[in-house]
Amino acid sequence: MKHVDILVIGGSAAGLTAAITARRHHPDKNALILRKEEHVLIPCGIPYIFGTVGSPEKNLIPDTVLTQNKIDLLIDEATALDRDQGHVTTKNGEPIAYDRLILATGALPAMPPVPGFELDNVFPVYKDVAHLHQMQEALKGVSDLVIIGGGFIGVEFADECKKNLGAGANVSIVEMLPHCLMLAYDEEFCIHAENLLRERGINPVTNTKVKRLVGAGAVEGVELEDGTVLPAQAVILGIGAAANITLAEQAGLEIGPTGGIAVDRTMRTSDERIYACGDCAEKVSFFGGRPSPLKLASIATAEARIAAANLFGTRRESIGTVGVWSTAIGETAFATAGLTEMLAKRHGYDHVVGTAEATNRHPGGMPGARSMKVKLVFEKHTGVLLGGQVLGDTAAGEVINAISACIQRRMTAEDVAMFQTGTHPALTASPVSYQFVNAAEAAIAALR
Amino acid sequence: MKHVDILVIGGSAAGLTAAITARRHHPDKNALILRKEEHVLIPCGIPYIFGTVGSPEKNLIPDTVLTQNKIDLLIDEATALDRDQGHVTTKNGEPIAYDRLILATGALPAMPPVPGFELDNVFPVYKDVAHLHQMQEALKGVSDLVIIGGGFIGVEFADECKKNLGAGANVSIVEMLPHCLMLAYDEEFCIHAENLLRERGINPVTNTKVKRLVGAGAVEGVELEDGTVLPAQAVILGIGAAANITLAEQAGLEIGPTGGIAVDRTMRTSDERIYACGDCAEKVSFFGGRPSPLKLASIATAEARIAAANLFGTRRESIGTVGVWSTAIGETAFATAGLTEMLAKRHGYDHVVGTAEATNRHPGGMPGARSMKVKLVFEKHTGVLLGGQVLGDTAAGEVINAISACIQRRMTAEDVAMFQTGTHPALTASPVSYQFVNAAEAAIAALR
Repeated sequence: MKHVDILVIGGSAAGLTAAITARRHHPDKNALILRKEEHVLIPCGIPYIFGTVGSPEKNLIPDTVLTQNKIDLLIDEATALDRDQGHVTTKNGEPIAYDRLILATGALPAMPPVPGFELDNVFPVYKDVAHLHQMQEALKGVSDLVIIGGGFIGVEFADECKKNLGAGANVSIVEMLPHCLMLAYDEEFCIHAENLLRERGINPVTNTKVKRLVGAGAVEGVELEDGTVLPAQAVILGIGAAANITLAEQAGLEIGPTGGIAVDRTMRTSDERIYACGDCAEKVSFFGGRPSPLKLASIATAEARIAAANLFGTRRESIGTVGVWSTAIGETAFATAGLTEMLAKRHGYDHVVGTAEATNRHPGGMPGARSMKVKLVFEKHTGVLLGGQVLGDTAAGEVINAISACIQRRMTAEDVAMFQTGTHPALTASPVSYQFVNAAEAAIAALR
Repeated sequence: MKHVDILVIGGSAAGLTAAITARRHHPDKNALILRKEEHVLIPCGIPYIFGTVGSPEKNLIPDTVLTQNKIDLLIDEATALDRDQGHVTTKNGEPIAYDRLILATGALPAMPPVPGFELDNVFPVYKDVAHLHQMQEALKGVSDLVIIGGGFIGVEFADECKKNLGAGANVSIVEMLPHCLMLAYDEEFCIHAENLLRERGINPVTNTKVKRLVGAGAVEGVELEDGTVLPAQAVILGIGAAANITLAEQAGLEIGPTGGIAVDRTMRTSDERIYACGDCAEKVSFFGGRPSPLKLASIATAEARIAAANLFGTRRESIGTVGVWSTAIGETAFATAGLTEMLAKRHGYDHVVGTAEATNRHPGGMPGARSMKVKLVFEKHTGVLLGGQVLGDTAAGEVINAISACIQRRMTAEDVAMFQTGTHPALTASPVSYQFVNAAEAAIAALR
């Protein structure tokens, strides 16, 4: 039987980062990634295959990163985990004994509980090159495309497919909440996003559930609750994902309340030699410590860095999931961290909000000048920062990381108001009107 | 005699922000800005007048921000400050009695202690519209321009003037340190910057002092220490600035070790009714608390927010000057926060460095993809983050603010390695290779 010091099952964001981190922190140990995919897709890049990027082959994580970090690779599928013996059996090869095991088995697309999903040209989004090729083929020349789910995956698919299908195609998004992107942004940001989508020829159909998919053989339409049928020669599902726990469950590992592999704050499972990270692992929120359903590649990599560092002695603990992510519609970026105002209310926080909008260059005649808006949510009595949202140019994707740092360190509105920023005419807002700081000042003024 | 609750002398970044903050925090008090300029220039935008922006008129802070915040304005010059009586006399009007006074009198360009600076077409950079017009006129058609001082102001002037003067013009920068930008960046970043300058047709002449300026009436050349003469029909000085303390000194306020108005951490001067902020005020470093010579608009505004909030009761204290700033050469941004490796050594820190470079998009085929590099400096035994430098696209100007937040909260390499970031294909590096986090991991690995 083959033996490895560190076995990582799964080669996407979590598994890869876990293996890199394991090698960095335990350079005297060998590490093997066991994955079933010949090629690994960049998960967040998948919607972009359908427009900007053009093909799955242009959206791969190069395996050179494995050789650079001296990580071994086995392409095969884990079929069973024997925890007593400490080994994993595979479909095509000999069993692999491990000293430590990291489960990074990811998630599988969720399927809505309504009829018709077996029809042809209805596509859940599997992270699989062949499947994505099949989707690309099926989408060619489609005149009516319906995307079910208006979260960031659904919105990105809509924007990219519309770009590719052209002006003649009808692209709709069906979302059961009142607005697209509503789990990540407050209403005013969602409305802005929906207006942008409409300007780009996309039709958001919100506040509506899907009743069933209709068609004979291939899908022909999406029937909504009220009986309306949206014509569709293809349907893409973007309604979320469920932790892939088959192997863990069979091996008797504890499963958590959201259906992920149960882990403590060190990312250790109920077996002391086994860790889990990424979409397959259970998460708790940074806010209140309750179970969190969030599944993001950036959470996966942060967890992987914790899990792998802890393999032979605990040194890191998760502070819980803050939830930081961003998306773009055309040239406009939307970014969010922590709690929106709506989520703060739902979590029971007595909160106060501050908003600031200013040009992202100074003076306004500098190239690239456009408006950037920051909204911050604070706990009212302590002034602690609970969340932030940014709307603006591509730099919003980094502004949110400054906000994230301040949330993670539980900075208050006063701290943020005195925050020392760097500003530059060609790069940011002016120091007088810098949005993040001014939003904190606005919240402080609102408290008076 | 006129009476105001809050009198602010100076209307640039510090004065304006102080007045806005005063009105926000003390809405029942009135506030008056007394300034001598008819129009206020955006200080950081001044180099861009000479290329991208085109004229001083397009680089003004609009006075609408005053009316929006119900701030009164008086254009006049303060000639004397009577602290016992609590009033300020002006050149053209009646004295103004104040309840609280904020001095935001800024800085004046430093002059090198060598002969020839009285020659025509030798220009210190005054923040004055008429002066900048005169400079623009004098620079028209110049075939040899020398800029003395290779800090960020000098580099920005060189880049913008070269853009404007065209391929035929010789634009040189004379810097006495071994490299341009050396107070803000480590050598490898400075060398990258100098190479970019050369590619853009600019000639950096480093490790050299100016002996004198030569010419009869108008300047004709810049003579260096070794006797070389660089021909010059115009010279721009960018060697720093000295606090403008005339009024404060005459009034007997204490002056600090770097020549600024002495203030405590609440920004209060030696007079309990008088506060100072911005370039005119003394500063201490966040690192060790020693006097700091840094003068930046973003420091000025942070100090202004502290000074103004404290006017009628102390609520904010400065943590000292971190020093966060950025510049751009063409499309390449350079950003820095806290201590460089060189400065960490000079401050006596036992330090460790981590660097990470990755594409700022994922996959690499996404539009706008280019390399972004992050270098972090940590204290070796505690792991506390001391500084960071970023080289990349315009988003570097915001990445540095996330780094700044982590410095200000004394986050360690371990904290940064577990930092929860948001990432997106169209906006940032991948979560696997996110530079800020990976630079921390590299430093941790280096400590092994």
